Amino acid sequence: MITAKARAVDGPDQSFRSAEIKRRDLDTHDVLIEIKYAGICHSDIHTAHGEWGPVNYPLVPGHEIAGIVTEVGPEVSKYKVGDRVGVGCMVDSCGECENCRRGEEQYCLKGNIPTYAGVDKYGEPTQGGYSTHIVVTEDFVVRIPDNIALDAAAPLLCAGITTYSPLHHWGAAPGKKVAIVGMGGLGHMAVKIAHAMGAEVTVLSQSLNKKEDGLQFGANHYYATSEPETFEKLAGSFDLIINTVSANIDINAYFGLLTLDGTLVNVGAPGEPLAVNVMSLIGHRRSFAGSMIGGIRETQEMLDFCAKHDITPQIEVISADQIDEAYKRVLASDVKYRFVIDTSTM
Amino acid sequence: MITAKARAVDGPDQSFRSAEIKRRDLDTHDVLIEIKYAGICHSDIHTAHGEWGPVNYPLVPGHEIAGIVTEVGPEVSKYKVGDRVGVGCMVDSCGECENCRRGEEQYCLKGNIPTYAGVDKYGEPTQGGYSTHIVVTEDFVVRIPDNIALDAAAPLLCAGITTYSPLHHWGAAPGKKVAIVGMGGLGHMAVKIAHAMGAEVTVLSQSLNKKEDGLQFGANHYYATSEPETFEKLAGSFDLIINTVSANIDINAYFGLLTLDGTLVNVGAPGEPLAVNVMSLIGHRRSFAGSMIGGIRETQEMLDFCAKHDITPQIEVISADQIDEAYKRVLASDVKYRFVIDTSTM
Repeated sequence: MITAKARAVDGPDQSFRSAEIKRRDLDTHDVLIEIKYAGICHSDIHTAHGEWGPVNYPLVPGHEIAGIVTEVGPEVSKYKVGDRVGVGCMVDSCGECENCRRGEEQYCLKGNIPTYAGVDKYGEPTQGGYSTHIVVTEDFVVRIPDNIALDAAAPLLCAGITTYSPLHHWGAAPGKKVAIVGMGGLGHMAVKIAHAMGAEVTVLSQSLNKKEDGLQFGANHYYATSEPETFEKLAGSFDLIINTVSANIDINAYFGLLTLDGTLVNVGAPGEPLAVNVMSLIGHRRSFAGSMIGGIRETQEMLDFCAKHDITPQIEVISADQIDEAYKRVLASDVKYRFVIDTSTM
Repeated sequence: MITAKARAVDGPDQSFRSAEIKRRDLDTHDVLIEIKYAGICHSDIHTAHGEWGPVNYPLVPGHEIAGIVTEVGPEVSKYKVGDRVGVGCMVDSCGECENCRRGEEQYCLKGNIPTYAGVDKYGEPTQGGYSTHIVVTEDFVVRIPDNIALDAAAPLLCAGITTYSPLHHWGAAPGKKVAIVGMGGLGHMAVKIAHAMGAEVTVLSQSLNKKEDGLQFGANHYYATSEPETFEKLAGSFDLIINTVSANIDINAYFGLLTLDGTLVNVGAPGEPLAVNVMSLIGHRRSFAGSMIGGIRETQEMLDFCAKHDITPQIEVISADQIDEAYKRVLASDVKYRFVIDTSTM
């Protein structure tokens, strides 16, 4: 067993504390990664606070992981010591079902194994990236291109792929009008990626506070959703809307912004069901869809795309002692645009 | 002005009465149709009862119209006296917007002109098919193939196209698993059409009462949704689900029946918003869509498809005096599967 330093919480209302956790000895296809940076995702907060169901505490969150390979199992063929690598929201899946065979491991019919708060195939609870080391089977490790710094790479493993995948799947491209709802951790990545894909990009944000940033990230237009005329002016405008907001918004108002055959994709799930006025879908053959992260092959594709287009998230690097404060600031939307923990401070 | 006999209602709680209505003199591109048969659609009942908003009574419903051309305007090129023709849910549209130019007049950006309860471009209220004659611009008239009887043709103009269009748009075909929710007027047409398109068809009905019919219409499987094990057994099964039920069902249970990238299409709209659990969409990148009738070109395509595949609805022909009773029986689901009014009894 390998011992790693980590930060853990012991209950929904607890602060983070230093911890030592065990990582399994390397199986034949395992890779030992020395974690350098770990992003803080809103899901970490939901899970740590027990808002998404019961949690087996102590919990070490973190599924935006960037680091260096320091050891490989005897049959590892894809990575070698010294490689710059990343791990995202899942660390394994059945590998045999129809969806896994299609490279859509996130939709594994037996359920993928999440990077933390899950149970791995050895029966052990999984623990995430707020730690110094992690052991992952090579098929769930991706390569970080040389021109992306490790701290900036970390958020790509969740915020990047979660927005890249639906943009790619629903065809963001030149000639397409794409709106991004919300410009937080996910939203700001969605703007950069959609712009790089050649789409005409509009940000729909509560206020115009981050308009300057949005335009700099590549948005062509920026509207405040707090102004009712926004919904009149933009009615029937967009081929694709990516909704990065998990709060319970009036989704029907956003359906009204879609063109004929347009699709609104939620990448986050509100805690409560959304009240969908079906007539707003029927009226222009619109679709309301959901999308969850992306497959491993697609995650690598996303990293290579970001490297090619020089896309990285805006980050604020913090020390391990600042996690609690960072959580508070995320909840207060006081982050531009992603916290990344420097794990050398563990 | 042309005088037509009709059946009209004067208020939400009124019975139908005999009426004489005026049809406009033929404009250059107009066609005068002697209506032979008019289907009774559930929308007629909603509208007549004022359930879909205020109505300008007296109202003559009916948008499943089959008849014979008896006169044509001076510049009509598509039809001649004696032609067997149909009119569906709309009688005009702007003809100039992007959607009209694409042949999707039902989604006209200025709003299509409904066959009844609308206002035509001359400023007159439109009155529907429960009458002996109607005047319609030739672009909104379709040709009924010779091998489809006029009484059986009538319901194709709404029930037929409303189900054909989403089945066609979302690719019902050999190798695809399609479920039809509800086996009423729309549902039984959906079964026949999906089967003729080569899909593997499953009916999801409240009970097994109509199972024998369903299998005869072409369904491969038939399940009762009142049995909870149906939802377990069929989880993740269908590429496409057409929901013909307008009642407020637990839509999330049906999302669970979709495979990765599957779509559930509503062709009816419940009066109340549906509570959508977004996680049930995100889990397998599922889509919830709406579809409304079909364009004129597609309606002709549907009629030709039905003629080729020898598809007609199951109908019960009634006299004009039986409309009130038929409405009651539709509301009690006591119809196999569509009432059609013989307008010679007007």
